[in-house]
Amino acid sequence: MNFHVLTLFPELINTVMNTSITGRALEKGVIGLECVDIRDYSHSKTRRVDDYPYGGGAGMVMQAQPVVEACNDLKKRVGNAPVIYLTPQGRVFDQKMARRLAQYDDLIFLCGHYEGIDERALELVVDEQISIGDYVLTGGELPAAIVMDCISRLVPGVLGNDTSADEESFHDGLLEYPQYTRPEEFMGLRVPDVLLSGHHGNVDKWRRQKSIERTLYVRPDLLENAVLNEKDREYLKEIGG
Amino acid sequence: MNFHVLTLFPELINTVMNTSITGRALEKGVIGLECVDIRDYSHSKTRRVDDYPYGGGAGMVMQAQPVVEACNDLKKRVGNAPVIYLTPQGRVFDQKMARRLAQYDDLIFLCGHYEGIDERALELVVDEQISIGDYVLTGGELPAAIVMDCISRLVPGVLGNDTSADEESFHDGLLEYPQYTRPEEFMGLRVPDVLLSGHHGNVDKWRRQKSIERTLYVRPDLLENAVLNEKDREYLKEIGG
Repeated sequence: MNFHVLTLFPELINTVMNTSITGRALEKGVIGLECVDIRDYSHSKTRRVDDYPYGGGAGMVMQAQPVVEACNDLKKRVGNAPVIYLTPQGRVFDQKMARRLAQYDDLIFLCGHYEGIDERALELVVDEQISIGDYVLTGGELPAAIVMDCISRLVPGVLGNDTSADEESFHDGLLEYPQYTRPEEFMGLRVPDVLLSGHHGNVDKWRRQKSIERTLYVRPDLLENAVLNEKDREYLKEIGG
Repeated sequence: MNFHVLTLFPELINTVMNTSITGRALEKGVIGLECVDIRDYSHSKTRRVDDYPYGGGAGMVMQAQPVVEACNDLKKRVGNAPVIYLTPQGRVFDQKMARRLAQYDDLIFLCGHYEGIDERALELVVDEQISIGDYVLTGGELPAAIVMDCISRLVPGVLGNDTSADEESFHDGLLEYPQYTRPEEFMGLRVPDVLLSGHHGNVDKWRRQKSIERTLYVRPDLLENAVLNEKDREYLKEIGG
């Protein structure tokens, strides 16, 4: 998986991606990262890439020309990778979308800044618009990093143990169960006995039930699309779901 | 607004927050940022903070002791600020939640890493669990940065123009209208005439209608809670909503 990022802040993307698990994956060459500074495609002497919005209003808008030229230049090299624009106006990113995008060899992320990018650039080069949630941010850099982090975890060889990605939240559309580690007692609070029992069947059952409980209490909206078997549904009914 | 972040990757948080708009706000002292390295509270010689999960399974779990001590130490200094844990198991963050959190003078963010934090630490110190979306990430650092970026924009003096935050996506629960800047024509695509007309009433009307259109086509789920007046509702009906 090779990530290509069109941005005004390549340093930010590089620092974020070179940290922790994605950092190790980059070092091992399991994933690749290239940042293109959109400012390099400015035709102005001051490397300016934004201007006032037509129709008035606060803030600045990124001009179409540097964005389109940067993107076309990149596409000449990486071929037909999808161009993804990060924006609150996009479809909402989730684990399922991450699994779909993880199938590509190359992904191009376009990060807007300020009040966004001239709409014509989006029409000309963007294939997909993605939002990471219903909130407004300074730019698309953090959202791009979020999406790349999430996708990276699904690339074989990125997580130490290939089962790790499978067991986590949202795999069956459920929230994750609580985790405990040593010591057995901390400030008067004990680890649940079942986790110390060594009985794998009981551990699995307890964890599954905790996942269902949490999802019911915190995010009942997720249950609609969760993958539940007969026993799951029985338990759900038992706890009032 | 002072942000306090409990993390294993203070460098990441510092770099991200010192970029662009939040960077300028930190420089001006309009917002404050302090990172606490949880590792400094490890009692082990190798500064270890994680261990295997009880009950088995892939990955490592952050131990309760360094997290609780780091947090209690911080709270001694900043008083009763809410402690927010970033986790997919939390309530989903949105612009409304950002406005609520922006009212505080201090916020403490706890970033988990690996497979999360020992549940007992969460019981002992965490006031609120927040998720930035339905996807799994390497750690809570990027989500904390997202939440801080979003909240910062609502702090007076952070955005150059105080009206900026008001006009953006989600203010009335609608997606934002398209933006255009110079030139009037780019690769055969022209800026919509109304934006060049200088007629503020028509510009506002056009933008409002585009917001409603987009929301209907891309995120009809948002319309349920959108703040619409009589004219908005008429237009929505007209376009088939």
